[in-house]
Amino acid sequence: MTDSPIDPTLLERLAEVSVRTGLNLQPGQELVLTAPVTALPLVRAITRAAYAAGASLVTPLLTDSEVTLARFETAGDETFDLAPGWLYSGMAEAFDRGAARMAIVGEDPMLLSEQDPAKVSRVGKATSTAYKPALEKISTFEINWTICAWPGESWAARMFPDLPTGDAQAKLADAIFSASRVNTDDPVAAWDEHNATLRARTRWLNEQRFSALHFRSPGTDLTVGLADDHEWHGGASEAQNGVVCNPNIPTEEVFTTPHAQRVDGTVCSTKPLSHQGSLIDGIEVTFKDGRIVEAKADKGGDILRELIATDEGAARLGEVALVPHSSPISQSGLLFYNTLFDENAACHIALGQCYSKCFLDGASLTAEQIAEKGGNSSLIHVDWMIGGAETDIDGITADGTRVPVFRAGEWA
Amino acid sequence: MTDSPIDPTLLERLAEVSVRTGLNLQPGQELVLTAPVTALPLVRAITRAAYAAGASLVTPLLTDSEVTLARFETAGDETFDLAPGWLYSGMAEAFDRGAARMAIVGEDPMLLSEQDPAKVSRVGKATSTAYKPALEKISTFEINWTICAWPGESWAARMFPDLPTGDAQAKLADAIFSASRVNTDDPVAAWDEHNATLRARTRWLNEQRFSALHFRSPGTDLTVGLADDHEWHGGASEAQNGVVCNPNIPTEEVFTTPHAQRVDGTVCSTKPLSHQGSLIDGIEVTFKDGRIVEAKADKGGDILRELIATDEGAARLGEVALVPHSSPISQSGLLFYNTLFDENAACHIALGQCYSKCFLDGASLTAEQIAEKGGNSSLIHVDWMIGGAETDIDGITADGTRVPVFRAGEWA
Repeated sequence: MTDSPIDPTLLERLAEVSVRTGLNLQPGQELVLTAPVTALPLVRAITRAAYAAGASLVTPLLTDSEVTLARFETAGDETFDLAPGWLYSGMAEAFDRGAARMAIVGEDPMLLSEQDPAKVSRVGKATSTAYKPALEKISTFEINWTICAWPGESWAARMFPDLPTGDAQAKLADAIFSASRVNTDDPVAAWDEHNATLRARTRWLNEQRFSALHFRSPGTDLTVGLADDHEWHGGASEAQNGVVCNPNIPTEEVFTTPHAQRVDGTVCSTKPLSHQGSLIDGIEVTFKDGRIVEAKADKGGDILRELIATDEGAARLGEVALVPHSSPISQSGLLFYNTLFDENAACHIALGQCYSKCFLDGASLTAEQIAEKGGNSSLIHVDWMIGGAETDIDGITADGTRVPVFRAGEWA
Repeated sequence: MTDSPIDPTLLERLAEVSVRTGLNLQPGQELVLTAPVTALPLVRAITRAAYAAGASLVTPLLTDSEVTLARFETAGDETFDLAPGWLYSGMAEAFDRGAARMAIVGEDPMLLSEQDPAKVSRVGKATSTAYKPALEKISTFEINWTICAWPGESWAARMFPDLPTGDAQAKLADAIFSASRVNTDDPVAAWDEHNATLRARTRWLNEQRFSALHFRSPGTDLTVGLADDHEWHGGASEAQNGVVCNPNIPTEEVFTTPHAQRVDGTVCSTKPLSHQGSLIDGIEVTFKDGRIVEAKADKGGDILRELIATDEGAARLGEVALVPHSSPISQSGLLFYNTLFDENAACHIALGQCYSKCFLDGASLTAEQIAEKGGNSSLIHVDWMIGGAETDIDGITADGTRVPVFRAGEWA
């Protein structure tokens, strides 16, 4: 670490916050940790922090971008519908036995941009299908989980292409540390305060019981019906195992479940979406009765349409989230090409799978009950940004009353 | 790789030999690859070679020595009987579906030497127990598998403590490349020739049908009964899936299954044994009716006795192997502190589990039938060296006739 442009003290704090606030790892709990191999310094710090917090066993699963690229560049065409299902079923078994789950992101977000989009899409679909049994335990919040970020060199180079490697990495590290609230003396207290603010927002929204949200901004006129018995969440959240965790480090959003059959109008993206290593930019999509009926993009339109065609639910919404334009990540002016950050810079919607916890008593609902209430289901869950400085949002109640929610990108 | 002391051409050849000769990976076959994270350059080269050979999917599982140490240094005492069973059952599932298995060794062999031996032993036992379902598919040769080596920095530093890091790593790399026969223009042809030599030895031994081997050397007077219907193996070997592979790169040994109830006498080790990161040296063990009745060591005696106490079969033999003193690895004069190399420098025996393939029609035998013929079973399989320049071995036939097998360390 001597030559690293990353402050080791702040890295230790990020590990600590990820384990204590993000995961709230319980004494005796096992931890399954996925990370790019370049994130090894953070993996090691998190492992130490997790054992110090009483972890029974920490198992990192490390991936390597060159190994990933070797597949796309060398493997036979007939092999791209395969995923390591045995590994994912192992992970599902670990979650069944009570393991917590942490993911570190930090890979080059454009890793696969030079590869054949059809192969990328086939691998994505095979992976989603194989990973589903494990992912369900995360999306239904059976266990406590969190995602945090490592300032990977190649990610930093994408964000700051004009800077030398070390400077770019230092700049990304600063942005991550700042957004993750570890550049303060007492990060855990900072997170407590932040969680209280988000809780006040969700409480107000839950009291309003809006039937729909109406988004207006240049190019966008979209009415997003909300699912019956939807519940707003944000910040700290209680998993079904009783552990209160922060699933995203950082996070600025409050979010809930749209009604899969009641979304109408046109919406434009306000930031590029980096999906499986490719960039999709300038998205314009029209919904009718909840389903996308027209989709185009200035860049990556084919990938967008492949994504939407993954399955029936991929053309419908699974999440709507509100983030003020004044959010620290938005104010940084940086485009991270990574959902964990970019979704916290703007209001956004997600295609695909909904979160069952975003319903009243969500944990007790069956998949059929969730569908009846308007909850969407899909192999995918892909967020993209639709909010900006000019975004107005009205809440519409069951009797048609309109309540200002956002004006000019800020809470009204 | 620009600053690496490891010749990239020879590294590519080692990857090629490991995939083609070691594994004989079949088109469409999946590969599960375990390696220390420091071996990433070899992992990447093997991944490329495997996809070029037609692999359907390559999944590396990388381990990190600092993550391992963090556990021993930080985790609570009550956690050391735990292993990631979910990961091993995933691996077993992959093998069931036809995946091949490659392991890269290269870690500091004395990694755990400063840790509490009781904790090391508990983790070893928990890991063996959890890994058993997957390991059985390897020890019974259901699938093609191989082990090869990466010249890890800390391993090199153990072997050459007086050299600068780069020089030590270069020297270990040379030793690995040479022993693995990749320092020739046509490594695959060199392996074909080597396999033919080993096949001639096993053919002769199988024709002799010895009932026992009698080892004599300074401090050693040991009669090792051979299992009923035992079969000698060495070099290339046909797995039950029909694939002929070389399970060890390098290999110099021919080996078979001793009779678990017919081993008598005293035997001394001729090289130190590095076991789970600790060194056991100057072993002296006495067998009676196949079982160890006395065990001591100049160094690591406690670890030896913990090992023997793992289960009933851990005090009995599962393998006996013959290696001439003139073997290239022996002649290098190097102590590798690693079984993959050191076992190819000297005749050796292994405590614990036997290989079912070392029986006539081994694949068709049940565990009970193997036990009836004298095959041992155990959670462990630990080799240690008993041969040297003064080793004499007689083969003893069923009628008591003695046939010279080794004289002064060489084939008679």
